[in-house]
Amino acid sequence: MINTMNDPKKNPVDANPTGSVPKVVVSRLSLYLRELQHLVRDGHETTNSKHLGQLLGVTAAQVRKDLAYFGQFGYPGIGYRCQELIVEFKRILGTSEPWGVALLGMGNLGRALLRYRGFASQGFRISAAFDVDEQLIGQTVEGIKVHSMAALPIKVPQLQIKLAMIAVPAVAAQEVADQAVESGIKGLLNFAPMTITLPDHVQSVGIDLAIELEQLSFAVVTHGRKT
Amino acid sequence: MINTMNDPKKNPVDANPTGSVPKVVVSRLSLYLRELQHLVRDGHETTNSKHLGQLLGVTAAQVRKDLAYFGQFGYPGIGYRCQELIVEFKRILGTSEPWGVALLGMGNLGRALLRYRGFASQGFRISAAFDVDEQLIGQTVEGIKVHSMAALPIKVPQLQIKLAMIAVPAVAAQEVADQAVESGIKGLLNFAPMTITLPDHVQSVGIDLAIELEQLSFAVVTHGRKT
Repeated sequence: MINTMNDPKKNPVDANPTGSVPKVVVSRLSLYLRELQHLVRDGHETTNSKHLGQLLGVTAAQVRKDLAYFGQFGYPGIGYRCQELIVEFKRILGTSEPWGVALLGMGNLGRALLRYRGFASQGFRISAAFDVDEQLIGQTVEGIKVHSMAALPIKVPQLQIKLAMIAVPAVAAQEVADQAVESGIKGLLNFAPMTITLPDHVQSVGIDLAIELEQLSFAVVTHGRKT
Repeated sequence: MINTMNDPKKNPVDANPTGSVPKVVVSRLSLYLRELQHLVRDGHETTNSKHLGQLLGVTAAQVRKDLAYFGQFGYPGIGYRCQELIVEFKRILGTSEPWGVALLGMGNLGRALLRYRGFASQGFRISAAFDVDEQLIGQTVEGIKVHSMAALPIKVPQLQIKLAMIAVPAVAAQEVADQAVESGIKGLLNFAPMTITLPDHVQSVGIDLAIELEQLSFAVVTHGRKT
């Protein structure tokens, strides 16, 4: 799953020896990647830091500073080659190869995530689902087999799964996270608006849906102020 | 719902006459707000552009540039007063007063959103739910009454709802969006990984869950490269 990197120039750890890329810079890397994918779709072969910056609402200097965390990109007089940056950014983000993802919890959120169509195109595939409900265990939902949560320690290594999405009720989130970690999961996506305590070697990302509503609120009131 | 702004210095439209604040700047405003809320919770009374920038992984200059879109903040020799910025940012984002939100679709995603605990603390309350399923209509789920989708044109003005979350299957999303717009909804949060066509006076925000998985992927591979 993890790319072997033979070229030390391109190794993000070498480009940034402290290893501490700010989270917001990494999140902009995803946004740059989406814009580059759109540019390629629209027939563009090259772009530059000014244009990329405009698409994201940051300065050209910020784009160059962001990219400098990860290595040297771009060509004098040409700028960036879109397709090349896409390949590089996917390599940096770790999505050059598809990831199998475990879905923990087959309640309403779990079933909604199973039906979500936006994962596959970016290199993520839910490869197994887990629940504690005896009625669900053994069933196949949306083509995915539901296993017992007790089977995590067997299935996670067997299917070489490294990432999991926690879609259980908040009260059960910490216990399920602990089980996932013990089974070998290295990264957890947490939808519960609460903090989960994890050992240092396990990474997590929490989702704050209220931020999206704030963005919508701003758009609506700003439009209201203008008209 | 929309604040009356008597102080022209603080009016975002005046601060930025074109009205075109880049979306990414607005999204950073939400992130600044979260960090300020954490700072206040941790007992901090003031902060500055360098510190706020560090928390978000942007330069102090970028923080000042971002804030300049919305007005003049801060005091010489003091920096920013956290509580004051929180009040200002909420006013700018339009969340000083709570919003009622319509939930369109009571399937798995809709029910998961109804149980989501992260909205209320930021000023959003699901005030009515709608579905086409006759079995659901009239029921009360998580304390929220489920109305017929056909009742949108009556309930939306009656309850003075301006925002809606679309949680219907992708094939029905455009039709439901059209009904919401006709009923007077001004802003739509769209969870389907597809574009909805809307008239100019209606705002929308789409959610890309794959970006969150990319961030997790990066954290996991980066940790793997370091150890």
